[in-house]
Amino acid sequence: MTTAPPDDAVPAYVLVLTCPDGPGIVHAVSGVLAGAGGNITESQQYGDPGTGRFHLRLQVEVALGREALAALVEPVADRFGMTWTLDVVGRPLRTLVLVSRAAHCLNDLLFRQRSGRLPVDVVGVVGNHPDLAPMAATYGVPFTHLPVERGRKAEAEAHLLDLARERDVELVVLARYMQVLSDDLCRALAGRAINIHHSFLPSFKGARPYAQAHDRGVKLIGATAHYVTADLDEGPIIEQDVQRVDHASTERDMVGIGQDVEAQVLARAVRWHAEHRVLLDGHRTVVFR
Amino acid sequence: MTTAPPDDAVPAYVLVLTCPDGPGIVHAVSGVLAGAGGNITESQQYGDPGTGRFHLRLQVEVALGREALAALVEPVADRFGMTWTLDVVGRPLRTLVLVSRAAHCLNDLLFRQRSGRLPVDVVGVVGNHPDLAPMAATYGVPFTHLPVERGRKAEAEAHLLDLARERDVELVVLARYMQVLSDDLCRALAGRAINIHHSFLPSFKGARPYAQAHDRGVKLIGATAHYVTADLDEGPIIEQDVQRVDHASTERDMVGIGQDVEAQVLARAVRWHAEHRVLLDGHRTVVFR
Amino acid sequence: MTTAPPDDAVPAYVLVLTCPDGPGIVHAVSGVLAGAGGNITESQQYGDPGTGRFHLRLQVEVALGREALAALVEPVADRFGMTWTLDVVGRPLRTLVLVSRAAHCLNDLLFRQRSGRLPVDVVGVVGNHPDLAPMAATYGVPFTHLPVERGRKAEAEAHLLDLARERDVELVVLARYMQVLSDDLCRALAGRAINIHHSFLPSFKGARPYAQAHDRGVKLIGATAHYVTADLDEGPIIEQDVQRVDHASTERDMVGIGQDVEAQVLARAVRWHAEHRVLLDGHRTVVFR
Amino acid sequence: MTTAPPDDAVPAYVLVLTCPDGPGIVHAVSGVLAGAGGNITESQQYGDPGTGRFHLRLQVEVALGREALAALVEPVADRFGMTWTLDVVGRPLRTLVLVSRAAHCLNDLLFRQRSGRLPVDVVGVVGNHPDLAPMAATYGVPFTHLPVERGRKAEAEAHLLDLARERDVELVVLARYMQVLSDDLCRALAGRAINIHHSFLPSFKGARPYAQAHDRGVKLIGATAHYVTADLDEGPIIEQDVQRVDHASTERDMVGIGQDVEAQVLARAVRWHAEHRVLLDGHRTVVFR
Repeated sequence: MTTAPPDDAVPAYVLVLTCPDGPGIVHAVSGVLAGAGGNITESQQYGDPGTGRFHLRLQVEVALGREALAALVEPVADRFGMTWTLDVVGRPLRTLVLVSRAAHCLNDLLFRQRSGRLPVDVVGVVGNHPDLAPMAATYGVPFTHLPVERGRKAEAEAHLLDLARERDVELVVLARYMQVLSDDLCRALAGRAINIHHSFLPSFKGARPYAQAHDRGVKLIGATAHYVTADLDEGPIIEQDVQRVDHASTERDMVGIGQDVEAQVLARAVRWHAEHRVLLDGHRTVVFR
Repeated sequence: MTTAPPDDAVPAYVLVLTCPDGPGIVHAVSGVLAGAGGNITESQQYGDPGTGRFHLRLQVEVALGREALAALVEPVADRFGMTWTLDVVGRPLRTLVLVSRAAHCLNDLLFRQRSGRLPVDVVGVVGNHPDLAPMAATYGVPFTHLPVERGRKAEAEAHLLDLARERDVELVVLARYMQVLSDDLCRALAGRAINIHHSFLPSFKGARPYAQAHDRGVKLIGATAHYVTADLDEGPIIEQDVQRVDHASTERDMVGIGQDVEAQVLARAVRWHAEHRVLLDGHRTVVFR
Repeated sequence: MTTAPPDDAVPAYVLVLTCPDGPGIVHAVSGVLAGAGGNITESQQYGDPGTGRFHLRLQVEVALGREALAALVEPVADRFGMTWTLDVVGRPLRTLVLVSRAAHCLNDLLFRQRSGRLPVDVVGVVGNHPDLAPMAATYGVPFTHLPVERGRKAEAEAHLLDLARERDVELVVLARYMQVLSDDLCRALAGRAINIHHSFLPSFKGARPYAQAHDRGVKLIGATAHYVTADLDEGPIIEQDVQRVDHASTERDMVGIGQDVEAQVLARAVRWHAEHRVLLDGHRTVVFR
Repeated sequence: MTTAPPDDAVPAYVLVLTCPDGPGIVHAVSGVLAGAGGNITESQQYGDPGTGRFHLRLQVEVALGREALAALVEPVADRFGMTWTLDVVGRPLRTLVLVSRAAHCLNDLLFRQRSGRLPVDVVGVVGNHPDLAPMAATYGVPFTHLPVERGRKAEAEAHLLDLARERDVELVVLARYMQVLSDDLCRALAGRAINIHHSFLPSFKGARPYAQAHDRGVKLIGATAHYVTADLDEGPIIEQDVQRVDHASTERDMVGIGQDVEAQVLARAVRWHAEHRVLLDGHRTVVFR
C-alpha cells in the first residue's frame, strides 16, 4: 500500500497487464522475471468469467533498467496478446487538475502530494474561474485561467489539450470541474482522466444532487470517482463511499458532508490510478488495492 | 436506546406528536406533564423549515394510567392541531411478517425478538410460499400459507387484511416479500407497513438489482427500509446502509452481502418504528434515534 | 447541524445547562423562553441515571439581546443549581492551535474554518518547532515559535497562558502537539482544551502507537479526540473513529491512514465543542449532535 | 469471495503455503501447476519484510485428483522449505462450536451454514450450560452438555478433545464460550481454534468489558476474532470491527450492539479460515480476502 520507493539499490518496477484468459500466463511472466534474477514482491490477479479477460499486477525488484526489462517482457506480451505497462514503483504521475470554484478537492490533492502520500506531480491547475489561483500559488503550482465562453468551448478544449501536451501530462483530474467535456475531449483523454461525481452513482444524476437527496430524505450521502467517458456519469467506477446524514441535515449540511466524501474518494482513486492499481475490464474496473 | 421497561413502579410513557410549527408548543406540553408530577426522561424535537411542521417525541415517567394521561394531553393537542400518539414505553407492537422464500430477514427479526432486543410481538408469518413455515414453527409463531394466484390477488389481499384485523395487527413488515401490493392495500396499511428494498434507493429499481449493480461495477452494496406507499419504491425512507464489494465479487457474493445489509437495516427500522421514533414529515421521515 | 446564522432578523441563541436531575426543569426553562416570545428550534436533553445529572441544549430564536435573555434565565438557573452558558448561535470561538511538525490537522482545521464549515476563529498558531509557520501565514494567522527547552517548560507554559489571555482565547486545540502539558496547565485549561490522540483509546497508550498497532497486527486504526486533563490520555472522550488496515499495511501506511482519521475526528470534536454540543458528565461527555 | 464449487467438471483446489522469502517461488509453483495443465484462477501473495516469510494462496482448476496434485507439489515444497496445505475449493470444514448461554453467535453461524454462505459442517455443539441445546436441535446438530466443574477442568477438557477426535474435527469455534482453556488445550488446538473476544483488543481485557467501555465513555464498541493461544487475549488477530454508540447508550444497549458486531466479526473470521485465507505470520495473521 505504501508509495515509497524501496530503500535499497535494486530498482523496483510495477508491471500491469491485461489479456484473454487462459493457462500459463502467470508462469510465463514469472519465468521471465525469475530468469532475470527478479524478486516478485507483490502480485495480484483477476480473471473475469464475464469478459474472459485476465488482469495481473506485479511488483518486482530486479537489477535491470526499465528498457532492458521491457525488452524481456515484450515477447511474452506478444505471445498472449497483452496490453501492458511497465513503470518504476513510486514514480509520480504528471498530473493536470481541472477546477471551478470549489476548493476542497484541490486542497486535499495538493496537501497529500506535498505530504508524500500521493504519487503525483501536479504540473498545473486549470480553472474556468480564477478563484483557486491563490491556492495553487501557495503550493507553487502554475495556474491557468481558462474561461469557457458560450459557443467557444471547442477553442477552450483545444487550449487545454495543448497545455496537456506541452507539459507531458499523464493524468487529468476533474476536481469538481463544473464543465461537461465534449465527446472528442473525452475520447482524447480516455483512460487517463478521473472525475469525482458529487453523488452515489447511479443515483441522482443531473443538477443539484444534494437538493435531490435532501428532498428524497436519504440517510446516506455518497460520492463516486470514475473514469471520464463520452457517456456522461456512466464511466467505469473506481471508488465510492458514503457518510450518514439525518432528517435535520439541511441541503447546506449535505453539501459540506458531501465535500468530505468527495475529497476522500477522489484522493483514493487518484492514488490507486497513479500506483497502477486500476485496470479496465469492459466498462467496469479491476482495483488491486 | 434501550427497549427495557423501567425497573421501578412509576409507569413510563412515550408521547409522539406532529403539528404546525410555532412558539409555545414545548412549554405547553411540558406544562401538562409537569402539572401531573411527571419526569421527562427523553425529549427530541425537530421543526422542518421546509414543511413548517413541528415534531416532538417525549418519554415521561408519571404516576398515571394511560387514559388519564391522554385526557390531560388532549386539550393541548387540540389547541395546537396535533396528530399524536401515547404509548407505554417498551410495549411490544403486534406485528405481522410477510415473506416469500428468503429466510435471512425473518430469521433476524424472530431471533432479535426472542433475545429481547426488538419490542415487537410477531403474531403471525404469512408466506406466498410455504418454505419458511418450519422457521416460524421453531419460534412458536403461526404460519399462514397464502399463495397469490394470477388473477386472484384481490382475494389474497382481502384474506391478508382479515388476518391483520383478527389479530389486532399494528405493524406489517415485508421481509423480502416478493409481491407488489395493490394501491388499495398500500393505502389501507399507510404508515404501518415497512418494506426492505434490496438496493440503495434511488438506485437500481426494478428486477435483479444485484445483477444491475454487478454489471455497473459498483463498489458498495446497499439496502433501504421504507414505508410502503402506492408509489412503488418511493415510500418515505427510514434507514439505509451499505457494505463494500469489489471487482471480484460475483453477483452471488453481492446477494449474500446484500442479505446481511438487508437484515440489519430492516431490524433497525422496525425497532425505531416500534419505539415510536419515526415520524412522517411530508414524504420524508424524522427519525429520533 | 448547520453552523450558519439564521437568515432573518430575530437573534438565535444556544443555551446549554447541567444540573441535578429532577422534575420540572424543561418546563421551567421553556416557560422563561415562551414568556419572552421565544421559539425553540432545537432541543436535546439527557439525564444520566449513573451521575444523577441532567443536561439540556436548546436553540431559541427570540427578539432580545444576550444580556436581557441571560437575566431572564438566571433566576431559573439559580433555582435548579444549574451550570449554564448562553451564546449566540454560530458565533466563532476564539481558538489557539498548538502544533509541532505534523501538518495534517492544522491544514484541515484552517481549511474548514475558511470554508465556513467550522465556527472557530483561529487567532494564533503556536509551534514548538517553526515548521508550520508558512502554512499559518497562508491563512493569515499569526504564528508563534515557542520552543520547549529542557528544564524550562514552566517558562514556556507561562508564555503560552499569557498569549491565550492576551488574545481572549476560548478554546485551545492540541493538533498533534507532541508535548506533555504540566498538571498546572491542564487544570488552567480544564474543559476548554481538546487533544487528538493518535490511537483508539484506551489501546496503545504511550510512544509510537502505530508501531505498536503494526506489531500487534490489528485490522483497524483509530483516533480519539478528548478533553485535556492532568491524567494523561484519560480525559473525557469526545469522538472516536477507525479505518481499516490489513497485513500488508506498513507502519508508514498506518501513519498515513491514521492522519486521515486524526484530522476528521479532531475536526468533528472541535465543531461540536464550538457549537456547544459537548457537555461534561463526570469523566464522560454528553454529545448532542 | 464466493464459496461455491465450480460449475464444470474440472476440480478446483486451493493451495496455501508459507516459506522463507526469496526469488523463484511463484515461478516454481506456477510451473508445476502449468505443467499439469492447471489454470490459476486466484492468486494472492505477501512477503513480510519483518519476518522474512513469504505467503501464497492459489486457486487452481486442474484435471487431477488431490493426491496426484499433492505429489506434484511436494518436491517444490521440499525445495523451498514450505509449510503447505492443499484442499478442494469449497469443501466444508468439520467444525465444533463451543458455547455457554449467549445464543447470538451460534444462531448466526448455523443460519449462515444452512444458507450456503459459510463453508463449514458443524458436527457438534458443546455447551457448559444446556441452554442452547434446543437451537442446535433445530438445525439437526448434536449437542453435548459438558459442565466444567471446579477442580475437574482437566477431565472436561479431555472429554472435549476425545469428542473432537471422534468426529474428525478440523476447526473449533469458541462462540462466546465463557471458559478459559488450559495451556495444554490451547497448544493442542493451536492454529485451529478461533475465539470471538467481546472487545476491540487490545482494549478492555478482563471481565465485563461493556461495563468498562460504558464507564470510560467510549464512542465505538468493537469485537475481535483471534486464534486461541495460551497467552489469553493475545492470539493472532483475524478480524475486528466496531459500531458507534453514544452517551445515551446504556451498558445493556452496548451489550446488544456488541452482540451484532461479535456475530459478524466471528462469521467473517470463520469463513476466511474455512476458505484457507488466513495464514500465520509470527504472531500476526495474513488474510487474503
